Amino acid sequence: MTFSPDPRLRNALAPRSIAVIGATEDPNKVGGRPLHYLKRCGFSGAVYPINPRRKTIQGMQAFASLDELPDTPDVAIIAVGHNAVGDVIEQCAVRGIACAIIMSSGFGETGSAGVARQTELVAQAQRLGLRLVGPNAQGVANFQTGAIMNFSTMFMEIEPADGPVAIISQSGAASVMPYAMLRERGVGVRYLIASGNDADASVCELALAAAVDPAIRVVLLYIESLADPAMLAETARLANARGAAVVALKAGRSTHGAKAAASHTGAMVNDDIVVDAFLELHGIWRAADVHDLINAVELYLTIPPQPADSLVVMSHSGAVGVLCADAADTLNLSLTELAPSVVHSLAGIMPSFATAQNPVDLTASLMTQSGMYAATLNTLTTDPHADMFLIGVPVAGPGYDVPGMAADTAAFAGNTGKPAVISAPQASVRRIFRETGVPVFAHETDAIRALHQWSRHGALIQQAMVRNQLETTTASPLVLPNRTNRFLSEAESLAILARADIPTVPYTLCHNVDEAIAAWRALGPDIVMKACSAHIPHKSEHGLVFIGLKNEQQIIDSWHQCAQRVAALQVPFDGVIVAQRVSGRREFALGVRQDTTFGTVVMIGDGGKYVEALRDFVVLLHPFSKDDVIAKMQTLRIAPILAGVRGEAPIDLDTLAHTAVALARLAASHPQDITSIDLNPLIVGDMGSQGWAVDAVIECNKEQG
Amino acid sequence: MTFSPDPRLRNALAPRSIAVIGATEDPNKVGGRPLHYLKRCGFSGAVYPINPRRKTIQGMQAFASLDELPDTPDVAIIAVGHNAVGDVIEQCAVRGIACAIIMSSGFGETGSAGVARQTELVAQAQRLGLRLVGPNAQGVANFQTGAIMNFSTMFMEIEPADGPVAIISQSGAASVMPYAMLRERGVGVRYLIASGNDADASVCELALAAAVDPAIRVVLLYIESLADPAMLAETARLANARGAAVVALKAGRSTHGAKAAASHTGAMVNDDIVVDAFLELHGIWRAADVHDLINAVELYLTIPPQPADSLVVMSHSGAVGVLCADAADTLNLSLTELAPSVVHSLAGIMPSFATAQNPVDLTASLMTQSGMYAATLNTLTTDPHADMFLIGVPVAGPGYDVPGMAADTAAFAGNTGKPAVISAPQASVRRIFRETGVPVFAHETDAIRALHQWSRHGALIQQAMVRNQLETTTASPLVLPNRTNRFLSEAESLAILARADIPTVPYTLCHNVDEAIAAWRALGPDIVMKACSAHIPHKSEHGLVFIGLKNEQQIIDSWHQCAQRVAALQVPFDGVIVAQRVSGRREFALGVRQDTTFGTVVMIGDGGKYVEALRDFVVLLHPFSKDDVIAKMQTLRIAPILAGVRGEAPIDLDTLAHTAVALARLAASHPQDITSIDLNPLIVGDMGSQGWAVDAVIECNKEQG
Repeated sequence: MTFSPDPRLRNALAPRSIAVIGATEDPNKVGGRPLHYLKRCGFSGAVYPINPRRKTIQGMQAFASLDELPDTPDVAIIAVGHNAVGDVIEQCAVRGIACAIIMSSGFGETGSAGVARQTELVAQAQRLGLRLVGPNAQGVANFQTGAIMNFSTMFMEIEPADGPVAIISQSGAASVMPYAMLRERGVGVRYLIASGNDADASVCELALAAAVDPAIRVVLLYIESLADPAMLAETARLANARGAAVVALKAGRSTHGAKAAASHTGAMVNDDIVVDAFLELHGIWRAADVHDLINAVELYLTIPPQPADSLVVMSHSGAVGVLCADAADTLNLSLTELAPSVVHSLAGIMPSFATAQNPVDLTASLMTQSGMYAATLNTLTTDPHADMFLIGVPVAGPGYDVPGMAADTAAFAGNTGKPAVISAPQASVRRIFRETGVPVFAHETDAIRALHQWSRHGALIQQAMVRNQLETTTASPLVLPNRTNRFLSEAESLAILARADIPTVPYTLCHNVDEAIAAWRALGPDIVMKACSAHIPHKSEHGLVFIGLKNEQQIIDSWHQCAQRVAALQVPFDGVIVAQRVSGRREFALGVRQDTTFGTVVMIGDGGKYVEALRDFVVLLHPFSKDDVIAKMQTLRIAPILAGVRGEAPIDLDTLAHTAVALARLAASHPQDITSIDLNPLIVGDMGSQGWAVDAVIECNKEQG
Repeated sequence: MTFSPDPRLRNALAPRSIAVIGATEDPNKVGGRPLHYLKRCGFSGAVYPINPRRKTIQGMQAFASLDELPDTPDVAIIAVGHNAVGDVIEQCAVRGIACAIIMSSGFGETGSAGVARQTELVAQAQRLGLRLVGPNAQGVANFQTGAIMNFSTMFMEIEPADGPVAIISQSGAASVMPYAMLRERGVGVRYLIASGNDADASVCELALAAAVDPAIRVVLLYIESLADPAMLAETARLANARGAAVVALKAGRSTHGAKAAASHTGAMVNDDIVVDAFLELHGIWRAADVHDLINAVELYLTIPPQPADSLVVMSHSGAVGVLCADAADTLNLSLTELAPSVVHSLAGIMPSFATAQNPVDLTASLMTQSGMYAATLNTLTTDPHADMFLIGVPVAGPGYDVPGMAADTAAFAGNTGKPAVISAPQASVRRIFRETGVPVFAHETDAIRALHQWSRHGALIQQAMVRNQLETTTASPLVLPNRTNRFLSEAESLAILARADIPTVPYTLCHNVDEAIAAWRALGPDIVMKACSAHIPHKSEHGLVFIGLKNEQQIIDSWHQCAQRVAALQVPFDGVIVAQRVSGRREFALGVRQDTTFGTVVMIGDGGKYVEALRDFVVLLHPFSKDDVIAKMQTLRIAPILAGVRGEAPIDLDTLAHTAVALARLAASHPQDITSIDLNPLIVGDMGSQGWAVDAVIECNKEQG
């Protein structure tokens, strides 16, 4: 499913004419500031202040009502009291206005009366065919055209400039903070949108409307509540397809605690972890904070993110090399081991006491031999494994030809197409490099973080573009048994899993004691006997699991105990499951659940008794491949064990991945029927052996019977 | 053991007179720049340029040799070729100069000839009673007196100013980077020392010499190689005792890979982890990078670090509150749950649509009601759990009374003695707050990181001050058995551990098959039989561990197998250990080793087969208390399991802590005898039960016999 941006919103981002309803003379009022900005920033379209009590406002001709306008504006700014908004919307529709930016507050953000007002407003707008930004929106700004339909004071404080960046935020403050940081670094911003309550157009839909502008290279998002993920996925797809990138700050991690839930998946996989998986899946980088949101922008604007592994550090200080190596190590970014021929060539350029290894230390002889800088860079780039370059300039001053270094760096980056960034604590040094278009950072860690983000984001984008081609197959039709409970019994659950190509333990559902004895003879000697009832998903808590049964009498006794204990619980007794006891290398917990926002969510965790206490798990969103599972498993804390340590064989991740893919396909093919599946444990053996789902509970969507 | 700073070094940091040997006219040469700075920075003492070929240098009277000086300078700067340094040192000693700062390079940093030169130089200086800074030192600067005996170009670039900060670094670049960052924030620096090769005076000894200055409130260190930890510990003790703080950037994490070693402790506990433990033990905060080194300095200068738990966030934006909550959550810093009375009072101050909860959202009504700012702050401080305050100012401009807010914040901090910091993306806003003495940060994460560091560092300092009083008891005398190997046998090891008050499994060392049968009858039925030989520390690899023995014949058979297999290995056979099979709740691996730099190092890890693969362990340096162990165990990944989950009792950490303390005491009391002890596993039961060391290997210092 793909979405095109609504042309009404697209026009609202680059309007030719703007009406301001509730326009006032005072530029420091909500209804006055946009007029002030429109004039000051040279908006060349028509501006129509609407105010029945004045002839002119801020020197512009005012109109008593929309009826009097000479033509139909592309967008209306609404800055009236909340009680008047409904009438104004009606008038806008009559006048043929297709989009309104509602700055008025007093809606969804202010309790139940406001929520009701907002619901009504949206219904009204939909009826009238009008799109809304807001209410409670700080508004939309287009710094290319000067269409500043936004009341933030920030553009008085820090002068705008057009540039290839779009900022779209649910919060006003969180829209202008990255703006301020980027502008103070000299980066221009074209769109700044603070969407407010997102009652109609969401932050994601507005991002899509901005991202279609081919001049936009970086889309920065601030999101508190992600209601519209499909629109965000489309924004990323569209941006990535032309080499632009999306970075999102999804705030509210800490308030999204794990939900209390019956399944492990529910208990462990909170909304925020699913957001992580979603953003990663679609090639969107998740920023940790506002600084992180903007930290790599200058680098992105130099070269679009690309997969890259290996970093070369050059400085005239050994300490800078050590600091960079530490920072890279923290982020699992490797320093290129330079080819012997490169080291040999470097040794010919550099003095004997310098370090012709990565990190490269030019030493203070850079002061007397400024030609060494370009010569070294040009030699380094002959190494085929050198992907990214960080040059540390810890100090400048007499003897350091900083303008020359800046020109050399810019030329190097231009010639090689590889990223080369500068770390320098002195603002004056950064300024000189920045003027040549080289990305600059105040310290090594910010520089390394930006390169790390650039390369990892490049890999995410590449994977997302491959994944967009992924063929997904649908599982076979599902016939659910008649149910007395929202859970299926273990036997029913295992049968459905087996049909869905998930390996299950050999078992028999036995309806009487003779069947149980026969099953023991067939599957034994080492078996597990478990009472089977859809009403008892957690059997061991009720003493309904028997192991170590050695003879017929023990089988008989255990059968009777199962029957009696289930009877005591006053729930239906479906018989017992007699299953082979299997042993493998390790137990995993797998779960899948339907998420109303993000679709089918799969969790794979290290299993056993302490699965929830140790929380060593990964999350994937359907659709995904076996390779995706295997790659993701490498991020587990138990990853070294999976690979095999102390002479052990590797664990059979292939079976695990197959099971996870099949489980996701089963749930995703039947979203109306299956609410969740808990498969705990899946016992997996050595690579090349097999696996067994030993217990499973399917939770269905609706109760029947 | 305490150290006083050497008065010769103390004088070199604040000299009354300075000789410059190798003085040159060119201020851009190493021998010229200090003269330039001494003049420019107004050093009021005597400066003696030494140069036989000139009458004056840089306008100062020059002297042909030290003999001609009218008095004895406190310090000599040496900027001559490395071959001349020895002679110059000799002349310095003759002239009675007590300390030389050697800027000359060509010593330990340049290969074996240089290393030899350096060794000789140090021996010479010690013979002559002269202290050295360097060689290869960028030098010492005192910005209080203008005694700039340092050739960095940085002080041309960024004007110095005196202040309560000392920077002591082994690297020149890493000394001036934090200087630049602090000066650009307006913070003054008194001492800047780049110590170079540390051939005589180490970075730690120079830190001690700077830290005795009562004006110094923050000591910042950059260390690549920590050779002198006792001096550093004393620096921290001395600083902390008067409310000053030490922050250290110990670089080179990534190059210190785990050493290959026989013991778990050796394999897992690399130097860098021990550095962590050492710094923590002595109340020194470890910074991750240069930015981290200086990030909290302004806060420290406002109030010395103190233990604190709970943070209040106030802003005129809801998003800032969410961002701060996220950042605090990442660092396990809690947001104060405001007392109901405080919430009630706030509600009286703030408009109904504002948020009278933490994080507090004043909303944009702050623009029209600027009195609300101080009123809210003053109400918040009535909450007894509100320890620290962060005020977010995401945007300013018309309507925001930033100077008023700054004055209110400064007054609040002054009145309450509690830290209050500002986060603001606009440099212009930060400047206004900074002028009133309020610590400012460019974004929420830096602000939260600073408060986190301040409070956690406060706790570390408090713990270190308590620990300085800790009485350490010595273990009983140790009588080592005659040895044929550097390892003791299991029986010998267990016997020593039992005498050292470490709980061991019930066992008998059996010298013949009859003793083995008798031991089985006494300790059985469930026993383990293990061959005992000092030459076979890893028995199971050789098939020398037998379990599940059910009758006398199996005991006899196993005895013979042990005897035969040990004989086949051609090592002495000491008999077999028959030990009770114990079961508890969890296995731990404990180890202790002697570190030549840091003393007795104890590791406690989650045990079992995958101890090295999962690397879930903590490290403590002797001496420590049981409480230290228990607190440290809370940082393990298995901490939730230790506390008891799924209805389990807590695990008996008391026995574990007792064992760790006893193990450390045993090793620390006998550093000449015991090299390491591996105790794997220690099986521990429920709280209140007991524990058992089940296997142990003591490694001795010297081979005997």
